[in-house]
Amino acid sequence: MTQQTINELGEFGLIKHLTEKIKLINPSSLKGAGDDAAVIANRKSTTVVSTDMLLEGIHFDLMYMPLKHLGYKAVVVNLSDIFAMNAVPRQITIALAISSKFTLEAVEELYAGIELACKKYGVDLVGGDTSTSRQGLVLSLTAIGEADEKELVYRNTAKEGDLLCVSGDLGAAYVGYQLLEREKRVFLENQTAQPDLGGNEYILERQLKPEARADIYQLLQTIEVKPTAMIDISDGLASEMLHLCNQSGVGMKLYEEKIPIAQNTFDMARAFNLDPTMCALNGGEDYELLFTISQNDYDKIKNVSEVSIIGHATEKSAGVQLITKAGNVHDITAQGWNHFKG
Amino acid sequence: MTQQTINELGEFGLIKHLTEKIKLINPSSLKGAGDDAAVIANRKSTTVVSTDMLLEGIHFDLMYMPLKHLGYKAVVVNLSDIFAMNAVPRQITIALAISSKFTLEAVEELYAGIELACKKYGVDLVGGDTSTSRQGLVLSLTAIGEADEKELVYRNTAKEGDLLCVSGDLGAAYVGYQLLEREKRVFLENQTAQPDLGGNEYILERQLKPEARADIYQLLQTIEVKPTAMIDISDGLASEMLHLCNQSGVGMKLYEEKIPIAQNTFDMARAFNLDPTMCALNGGEDYELLFTISQNDYDKIKNVSEVSIIGHATEKSAGVQLITKAGNVHDITAQGWNHFKG
Repeated sequence: MTQQTINELGEFGLIKHLTEKIKLINPSSLKGAGDDAAVIANRKSTTVVSTDMLLEGIHFDLMYMPLKHLGYKAVVVNLSDIFAMNAVPRQITIALAISSKFTLEAVEELYAGIELACKKYGVDLVGGDTSTSRQGLVLSLTAIGEADEKELVYRNTAKEGDLLCVSGDLGAAYVGYQLLEREKRVFLENQTAQPDLGGNEYILERQLKPEARADIYQLLQTIEVKPTAMIDISDGLASEMLHLCNQSGVGMKLYEEKIPIAQNTFDMARAFNLDPTMCALNGGEDYELLFTISQNDYDKIKNVSEVSIIGHATEKSAGVQLITKAGNVHDITAQGWNHFKG
Repeated sequence: MTQQTINELGEFGLIKHLTEKIKLINPSSLKGAGDDAAVIANRKSTTVVSTDMLLEGIHFDLMYMPLKHLGYKAVVVNLSDIFAMNAVPRQITIALAISSKFTLEAVEELYAGIELACKKYGVDLVGGDTSTSRQGLVLSLTAIGEADEKELVYRNTAKEGDLLCVSGDLGAAYVGYQLLEREKRVFLENQTAQPDLGGNEYILERQLKPEARADIYQLLQTIEVKPTAMIDISDGLASEMLHLCNQSGVGMKLYEEKIPIAQNTFDMARAFNLDPTMCALNGGEDYELLFTISQNDYDKIKNVSEVSIIGHATEKSAGVQLITKAGNVHDITAQGWNHFKG
């Protein structure tokens, strides 16, 4: 049997094929795909909504990003925004534009990744849109979450004196990206070359299959710490710190020696002649949570292994500064992934 | 002063520029653009969510679609899905991918259309995503609405004997599209040619600046008619009837003589050697509401000028049929705009 293209299946056939086996798991998902709109029962006092668009050639490269990983990552990136509000994601919708030359098998791979992420994070795929694209794969996801209004954490509420915290470690996704780009160049020069990726599973997984920090959301509930402000790290630590500072009207001091960087990240950054600290500051795509807490909560968080205290908020006039290991002081400026300037 | 490109402004600069002047008008829009997610206060018992993606070269042609109209239409198309649930749209999010060579002025035109539609329909633009695109303009919109659960109208609840109704008139958007395509061909052959569009404002507006039927939603509330099933007409009357029939497990009879077609639509269809009925059945993009009502509600709706009764639901085994003006019977099959087959 030859592979069926989505062209043969048609738009409605494809949507039906992809959505008919979806089982809704959240009681609040009253109606999923198949009508003009999805219907969600309101159980908490607010609904939070976040939208992301991912384009082939801009946000991902299908040469080294398997479709299943792409589907998984697209969902994770979107859910990360909901956790960054201190809310719980419950539903997603997905709009997909894809070349009609793709096989059904390829689209199924993409959906397998989407479904895997949905299952892992307990969210329902409740609708979307499917279309052909003349030029490349485009994915647009909207995540919907719920929270009591008093639990929400915004970006504009950090206070002078608050401690700056970050989950996990930083820079790995960027170094993983550098490694994939290097192997792509080697392959393009010599198509019999085998990729040299051994021993770098961690940084590759951080780039190809990142996770959203649902566990940190849970942890903060458990230890009864409500951050004073929070954002997820998609563009790099520097860029996200500036968002928090600009919106909250504070300055910040960041201590280089406190920035969590995994050994593998550190070593590979060095191998690429990159400064590991710069990878953490400007690399992006870590999807860790960056948040401020009141000093009163210091005792609750100081022994949590998954959270590092990396600095503190100051008065606005003090600026946003990096204190290097050598004790030098630098202003922090945004050099994150600016796709318009890329 | 030279025109500023969005490349010079950068992603964050562009988002700030486009969103900082947005005023939220719905009390339920607690937080708009500028954080990880938008926040919506829940006032009704359900939230409805619909997503659409529009791609240049597939869903629109910038050669004859002004950017302001495109922005307006993109919002309207999305809101139409919410009205088709018998719900009220309150918020939208917009993900936009655009070539970095676009001028800021061009993006502002697009947003002017988006804002005009938001204002007209009383919805808030609460967030989204902005990115560069290597190949063309891509828009993905998510509309969020609210309704009491008992007010919602699905596609799968039409009953045998129900009357089939449609708002407004059909086929105009498709004939308008044919006219624009003709003038585009003329222009491409002779670039000094002036477009011959005179006297066709109605069909052109139906293609370039359609409206969602908020007034029909209101009317149904006023005359106290709750449809038994409803869908909006994006792919054509035939395709939407088949959705209602397949999902509800009924058949339908449609009477050709009852299909509302405007005189301008009829005349231009003839001028293009098109059957006006086929334009209504398969043209699409009318964004009218197609719904079934109980026979008990006939007296309430029979004198409503904006609604036509065009057929009725039958038992499933009777199939989905068109009764022509000559009394012939044809099976209705879907030949709507299938972008994969286009």
